[in-house]
Amino acid sequence: MKDPVAPDGADHRTRVGRERRERTEARILESAMQVFAEKGPDAPLIDDFVRAAGIARGTFYNYYRSTGELLEAVSHILEDDLIASIVLELETITDPLVRLATGLRLWMAKAESDPAWCSFIVRVRRRAGAVERELGRDLHDAMKSGQVKAPSLALARDLAVGTILEAMGRMTEERVPRSYSGDVVAVILRGLGVDARSIRALLARPLAPARRPTRALAR
Amino acid sequence: MKDPVAPDGADHRTRVGRERRERTEARILESAMQVFAEKGPDAPLIDDFVRAAGIARGTFYNYYRSTGELLEAVSHILEDDLIASIVLELETITDPLVRLATGLRLWMAKAESDPAWCSFIVRVRRRAGAVERELGRDLHDAMKSGQVKAPSLALARDLAVGTILEAMGRMTEERVPRSYSGDVVAVILRGLGVDARSIRALLARPLAPARRPTRALAR
Repeated sequence: MKDPVAPDGADHRTRVGRERRERTEARILESAMQVFAEKGPDAPLIDDFVRAAGIARGTFYNYYRSTGELLEAVSHILEDDLIASIVLELETITDPLVRLATGLRLWMAKAESDPAWCSFIVRVRRRAGAVERELGRDLHDAMKSGQVKAPSLALARDLAVGTILEAMGRMTEERVPRSYSGDVVAVILRGLGVDARSIRALLARPLAPARRPTRALAR
Repeated sequence: MKDPVAPDGADHRTRVGRERRERTEARILESAMQVFAEKGPDAPLIDDFVRAAGIARGTFYNYYRSTGELLEAVSHILEDDLIASIVLELETITDPLVRLATGLRLWMAKAESDPAWCSFIVRVRRRAGAVERELGRDLHDAMKSGQVKAPSLALARDLAVGTILEAMGRMTEERVPRSYSGDVVAVILRGLGVDARSIRALLARPLAPARRPTRALAR
């Protein structure tokens, strides 16, 4: 005799199991971000993640085979999150210099509003591929239009990325004044040969508020 | 009866022993710099250093108690070396902006002429305390004299140090044009509000040639 409740019960069990799996994975990812932020990309052992997430060692291996795989997963989540924070906001802007300045401002706003992300990026130096590609394209276009003057695209990127990473490092270690993020963008633009009046105008443009912290944390 | 040869023999043995110790230590330090440059500050195990130096495991412990102690030793040697390369060269210069520009140029020249040092600094991010203190002082003085205009000393440092570290990272990964080092200094100075004519004049000043590679390697 068929049990009419069984299919529903199975569905229910499947759904509960899936939800539990997702919660556990989110917990691993969330605590892993902090472990990597503290210990760097290479030093942590699986036990560090197991302890931080409060799970059994065997459970860890149901989700990830190695610390390297976990680092990849955390990096991907954070990259998706950054794409949502920055790349999508830029979609409607066409002027290369406005795109560039807005992208830099959004990056700094993200660093300010999400200290866990900021520490992870600073410590792991696993960089934000999609966002840096976008930055490279905007720099290239702004150089082509003559709005940015730099000896080479490579150097323009080193100036922008290097200054931002160093400023993010400072933000993980000490309180910076409220004006810091804007000032960082201003000195980068000055280094890129943008004149003072344009810099003031660019920084005066309204900026979409920073999105909430990473997806893993928001689950 | 006294053996008239004994004291000399002992001296000789002491000297030979000391020289052998120094050679072994230099070998450990030299190979350790490369291990840290490859694997970063936290990941290497003692076996990595033992293998790289071609010594017995027990021998390692005659010199250092831990990988952390070895990292300290390597960092100190490299710092002494950088002091010789940069700080001493600046001794006779009094103008703050000339000191600043010359210090940045010497730092880049060092990075160019000593790839092992460059990789170590980029990977380990163990920074050059004495040289950065010097840089901080020169930035402070140049801001006070009005030669450098930046929203804060902190940000002036982030711009200079961040751009240089990012450029050094690029130099470890790809060939850069011969003009790169000078261009790096030029965009930093521009970001610090120095005008184009002054930048050209500063970069045209003769520069002492970069010193030979690190002391450990030179032994």
